[in-house]
Amino acid sequence: MTTPPTTAPHQRTLKRIVILGGGFGGIYTTLHLQKIFRHHDAVEIVLINNDNYFLMSPLLFEAGSGVLEPRHAVTPIRPLLHKARFIEADVERIDVDKRLVFARHTPDDKPYEIPYDHLVLALGGKTNRSLIPGSEFALGFKNLRDAIYLRNHIIDLFEQADASDDPEEIRRLLNFVIIGGGLVGVELIGELTEFVDNLLRSYPRISREHIHFALLDASPRILSEMDQELADYAAETLWRRGVEILTNVRVQKIEPFADPASALRVYLPADARGQARILEAETVLLCAGVMPNPLIASMPAESLKGKIVVEPTMRVTSLGNVWALGDCAFIPDKNGKPYPPLAQHALRQAKVVAHNIARVVLNDGAHLQPFVYESKGTLASLGHYDGVGKVLGIKIRGFAAWWVWRTYYVMQMPRWERRLRVILDWTIALLFRNDVVKLDLFGQAHPSHRRRGTGLGFGS
Amino acid sequence: MTTPPTTAPHQRTLKRIVILGGGFGGIYTTLHLQKIFRHHDAVEIVLINNDNYFLMSPLLFEAGSGVLEPRHAVTPIRPLLHKARFIEADVERIDVDKRLVFARHTPDDKPYEIPYDHLVLALGGKTNRSLIPGSEFALGFKNLRDAIYLRNHIIDLFEQADASDDPEEIRRLLNFVIIGGGLVGVELIGELTEFVDNLLRSYPRISREHIHFALLDASPRILSEMDQELADYAAETLWRRGVEILTNVRVQKIEPFADPASALRVYLPADARGQARILEAETVLLCAGVMPNPLIASMPAESLKGKIVVEPTMRVTSLGNVWALGDCAFIPDKNGKPYPPLAQHALRQAKVVAHNIARVVLNDGAHLQPFVYESKGTLASLGHYDGVGKVLGIKIRGFAAWWVWRTYYVMQMPRWERRLRVILDWTIALLFRNDVVKLDLFGQAHPSHRRRGTGLGFGS
Repeated sequence: MTTPPTTAPHQRTLKRIVILGGGFGGIYTTLHLQKIFRHHDAVEIVLINNDNYFLMSPLLFEAGSGVLEPRHAVTPIRPLLHKARFIEADVERIDVDKRLVFARHTPDDKPYEIPYDHLVLALGGKTNRSLIPGSEFALGFKNLRDAIYLRNHIIDLFEQADASDDPEEIRRLLNFVIIGGGLVGVELIGELTEFVDNLLRSYPRISREHIHFALLDASPRILSEMDQELADYAAETLWRRGVEILTNVRVQKIEPFADPASALRVYLPADARGQARILEAETVLLCAGVMPNPLIASMPAESLKGKIVVEPTMRVTSLGNVWALGDCAFIPDKNGKPYPPLAQHALRQAKVVAHNIARVVLNDGAHLQPFVYESKGTLASLGHYDGVGKVLGIKIRGFAAWWVWRTYYVMQMPRWERRLRVILDWTIALLFRNDVVKLDLFGQAHPSHRRRGTGLGFGS
Repeated sequence: MTTPPTTAPHQRTLKRIVILGGGFGGIYTTLHLQKIFRHHDAVEIVLINNDNYFLMSPLLFEAGSGVLEPRHAVTPIRPLLHKARFIEADVERIDVDKRLVFARHTPDDKPYEIPYDHLVLALGGKTNRSLIPGSEFALGFKNLRDAIYLRNHIIDLFEQADASDDPEEIRRLLNFVIIGGGLVGVELIGELTEFVDNLLRSYPRISREHIHFALLDASPRILSEMDQELADYAAETLWRRGVEILTNVRVQKIEPFADPASALRVYLPADARGQARILEAETVLLCAGVMPNPLIASMPAESLKGKIVVEPTMRVTSLGNVWALGDCAFIPDKNGKPYPPLAQHALRQAKVVAHNIARVVLNDGAHLQPFVYESKGTLASLGHYDGVGKVLGIKIRGFAAWWVWRTYYVMQMPRWERRLRVILDWTIALLFRNDVVKLDLFGQAHPSHRRRGTGLGFGS
């Protein structure tokens, strides 16, 4: 039978550091530890992630719209590792008393048990589907699966709309509702408006007037991460592209619409005139609300808003050999407030936590260092060579912001091979229109299809 | 409710030609008809296919191994069409009396009814799973889904093998059995040997000795499409790469192996010494036996080996307004033998059938032309910059054959954008090793997973 791969008798001399999660936090922690311990044979480093690649999440929008090949928005993990070992598995449970991680490889369900001396939680976040009833019918936009799915889904809607003669149906098919006007929602809708403009050239029976975008946010304005002035620029840009922006709108529920079987209804609260409104759409995207991985809640440690509370050194106080960083950790800044869940923070936390772990493992008497970082800025791409943001205190917008955004992210890719592929994709995208090929998926076992049970039966 | 899109009252003056199938035959018939009738408003051309792209099947091997981006092995159909209309749907039924095609769009199950005046069957073939019992457990290699799936599957096996300490399990995980030593099987195994060599660099715990390839054929030798001398060259090349070639072997059955739940057993007949042999493998690929689309069998017309029998003009004798070409048609040559199911034939049949249909529709009194073609040659890529074949009577092998093969197929791509992408992919592949990123699929609802029901439960 299957022997769990890493349960060899635990020697006293061998220290094993196990990192859970392959996002910015987990990958860079592994890379730093690998470097620190490159000449220490008594220290073993194991990274566990459910995918064997690392996602450049800011490039996900372009992967979804087809500017980038989806595979180019990710970097394979294995070529980055020299000393550290990689195991592709889903983490299922952590036993802090026995110091064991229980994981499982999909799709064959092979169970793994991985003992650790030090554990690093870098499990990130996932879409929070508990805030709005019916969220399970909406699409998420967190990983490569979501991006590939969204692209195929939209092309499929265009195929249906092109074949339809019913104006009501076409309107519903080409209505896009994005819930959440933060960075994710704004970048996504920016790319989508560019994507449909490209698609239209291949569907002569569909015109831009058939397509409708709505961006909803519960707060008084979009892009709350940015200055009012920059957010206004983004809102105006989107508005000029025909995006309806609805702020101060808390979606009440999402429901499948019985006839036709496949559409969704998004219920909005009554407006100033007491008019409740229902949006009917085939596509509802949930870009609001990220919650930490549920595994965090199962840890016997203090948590705040689902995040595990750590010291500024990223150590979990009550569990001396567990560390946490990134979106799943509540790391207090000098005012006791948590750092925001941004890649630029996770990257820098990784370096600090790796060195702190090294200090404890090597027991060299050095003091652990707290994480302190002042953000250098925020940038958002709006698609169509347009962007907005603030870098080192300077506000930029338009093509310049878009260009800085692109250049920054491509330079964050860990390998030149990937950078080259991304740059080539961008070059080709300048020369040719996007194509309308759907990458095939099997089964389409996706939330949005749960509601699709019975067919319509043959028309006559 | 959904109105079938093209059931507008059928005017006497409007003639509609409906083409079923978007392979070489269907696409090129549509393109020729579109050109012939470009100034005829009274003639409507409708192409129906279940994917909105056209697959360059000879490039599927490279798409599967990651040399090409999967999407680059296909060409979107829509940009090719100016006059002709495209409908993305699965053809379900044909009513030749009412002259109606019944189709269905997936995944939303929307039914379409498309009337026709002339019907062109270019439905191609599919893997024949009725020859070997248990074929449903094997993987096919016919379309983009299969290619993407195979790549992910192999990378996944490497991830499992890398995590395993059980030599028996590693052997089984890395055993590849290819059934069918024709062009498809040989090209596929050639690419696979190159692919695993590239993968190995990312999996330091796995060595080439752990990997085993077996190529099985029921006939006395592989590559029966080619001269003995060329087939010998291919066999020797594969043998040097460690491929075990078993000829005169008719697989008796394929069965799931109870323990572990996920492996397969391939039963071979007894050899000269009376030894029966069972191959245990995680991967069994079915590259033998192509059968025409089952819709063909439902047509009220004569068929031979599942193919619809047509006149040399490609007209179905008993149904004057139905035509057929490509892999689903039995088109007699001057000796009454059928033309082989090769792309180069389908391409040329398309031109002849389009002109014949035009003659009937325009009723210009011209005689219909029979299809007559002498093949210019056959080429097979063996991967690793090696190939073999015969072009215009000259035998070539090695790098030259491989280069001619590549150049020929890239020039067959209908658009320069795709050619450029393919050439760039090839260039990058020369500079960098293949990556090990798995493109995500949902559900993994694939034949090979039918047998995967219960998990192993937690080890202790």
